[in-house]
Amino acid sequence: MKKTRLCNLLGIESPIIQGGMVWIANAELAAAVSEAGGLGLISPTAGMSRNGDQVDNLKGQIKTARSLTAKPFGVNLPMLHNPQIEDLIATAIDERVDVVVTAAGSPGLYTDRLKEAGIKVLHLVASVRHAQSAERRGVDGVIAEGCEAGGHNGLDELSTFVLIPQVVDSVSIPVIAAGGIADVRGVVAALALGADGAQMGTRFVVTHECIAHPNFKEAIIKANDNDTTITGRKFGPTRILKNELAYKILEMEAAGASVEELIDFIGSSRSRTGQFEGDLANGESYCGSIAGMIKEIKSASEVIRSIVDNYDTVLDSLR
Amino acid sequence: MKKTRLCNLLGIESPIIQGGMVWIANAELAAAVSEAGGLGLISPTAGMSRNGDQVDNLKGQIKTARSLTAKPFGVNLPMLHNPQIEDLIATAIDERVDVVVTAAGSPGLYTDRLKEAGIKVLHLVASVRHAQSAERRGVDGVIAEGCEAGGHNGLDELSTFVLIPQVVDSVSIPVIAAGGIADVRGVVAALALGADGAQMGTRFVVTHECIAHPNFKEAIIKANDNDTTITGRKFGPTRILKNELAYKILEMEAAGASVEELIDFIGSSRSRTGQFEGDLANGESYCGSIAGMIKEIKSASEVIRSIVDNYDTVLDSLR
Repeated sequence: MKKTRLCNLLGIESPIIQGGMVWIANAELAAAVSEAGGLGLISPTAGMSRNGDQVDNLKGQIKTARSLTAKPFGVNLPMLHNPQIEDLIATAIDERVDVVVTAAGSPGLYTDRLKEAGIKVLHLVASVRHAQSAERRGVDGVIAEGCEAGGHNGLDELSTFVLIPQVVDSVSIPVIAAGGIADVRGVVAALALGADGAQMGTRFVVTHECIAHPNFKEAIIKANDNDTTITGRKFGPTRILKNELAYKILEMEAAGASVEELIDFIGSSRSRTGQFEGDLANGESYCGSIAGMIKEIKSASEVIRSIVDNYDTVLDSLR
Repeated sequence: MKKTRLCNLLGIESPIIQGGMVWIANAELAAAVSEAGGLGLISPTAGMSRNGDQVDNLKGQIKTARSLTAKPFGVNLPMLHNPQIEDLIATAIDERVDVVVTAAGSPGLYTDRLKEAGIKVLHLVASVRHAQSAERRGVDGVIAEGCEAGGHNGLDELSTFVLIPQVVDSVSIPVIAAGGIADVRGVVAALALGADGAQMGTRFVVTHECIAHPNFKEAIIKANDNDTTITGRKFGPTRILKNELAYKILEMEAAGASVEELIDFIGSSRSRTGQFEGDLANGESYCGSIAGMIKEIKSASEVIRSIVDNYDTVLDSLR
């Protein structure tokens, strides 16, 4: 498939990134993606206990990934509400990871420090304004994520189809499309909209290498097109698999529950409960709305190979 | 650009459809689109007074379109809550229009009668289940519309990016992508996702031929990426331009207002107020979330030509 400028920027063969999903983006997954020619991302919480130390955990994950691949990989660091963020940034620098993806917070906070250490910085955005702001702060590229994505979404809930071309038109740095992509058709569509690459999350959850709980993988495989929903519109839209919890939250929201009532009800670490522990009834299983198209567990390399190998076939079909 | 099987089905040169927007999809617009090689759609309410007769109006619109083009055009007929729907179907048959798009109601109601009269039937869907149901009822194709589209959306709020490939995988009839498309990049992306064609609404509002109020066209041109929102989630998601009315509805919804309270507040024909009368503060201006990308009034033929002429350039950029 096409080598875009993202490939040159990151030193990768195919412009495909595996999203750094909280609790479950583990070293083995990231290394397998990188080894297959994409860019794997580690989450500092991958496999960690509920009250574990993210810094220690991240160091272990990086060590494991290094033992599995000599190719570039990265770390995903959401900044907001993370008391360990300073130490995590320092760890990424000390460990000389190739790429850091920052999210949920100002790209002005750590971009300079990371870049001075020779690390490439990508920042997650969900609107034109935030993409422009990130470019001004000097990031190397933006991951523009549509509201199809699992987990936390931007307040404006712009979809991938409308977000990508508008972000592409508003910045000159590379743009990676995320949200709703799970196969070669989505990757070609993302590049047609002007993106320089594609990031996938949910597709990589359903791989042999991912440490997501088997119940969670199975739920994605069984999901239909309408089996995810967005909760939390009052304080932070979050796309999750529909379950008892989701219906209860939606019911509270429809009845006019306050932000405090909702946050109090939801509590914390529910995403670990669903994704890592496999308690699908009580957990929040962050899940992209493309889940309905994912029908089998593959290896991470198969996911990437099926895109690379079929890219030209899709292009040919458009002539 | 590629001639898809939709071109053969409808007897058109380019697989591009202009959405049949309530109040403002007039004969001159539809004829200009058809004349340029796409398929124009007339709304039976186009230019009509608030309590006008849709049947008389539709006959006039068809007559005007016939005087402007010898090429195929169609009529858009949402079925639900339309007391004149029987007579409108009969009119489409009497007037021998080429294509009828049915929406908001069962495709089983009129498909047989229309097809017996030699009319091609496309049905608007927003989920896999509805697409499969429409295929079983014998429609010639489905327009799969993502929640990026202006106006009424499906309850599941599936985006174009995830809806299209899943619908394509679930039916064998032609699939037309709608929602979030406004330029050649969107058309190529839609076809990459497996669609046989693309429908655009908001892009065609901002044309010289469309009878939308100049205030409405100007508001679209001025819109940013985040200037539309979805209201009415409790009874029927509706994407409109953000305005005083939209904020008031969202505020009522957040406070837990009932369906009755909301419908009572919104009243009826607000979409005429905004789109045709140009009262942007009090009207509902149905508007796609791609509005931020539309920056100038063009002629309908320019819209189509810019897609057809640049199609290969986009494809070449993907190699």
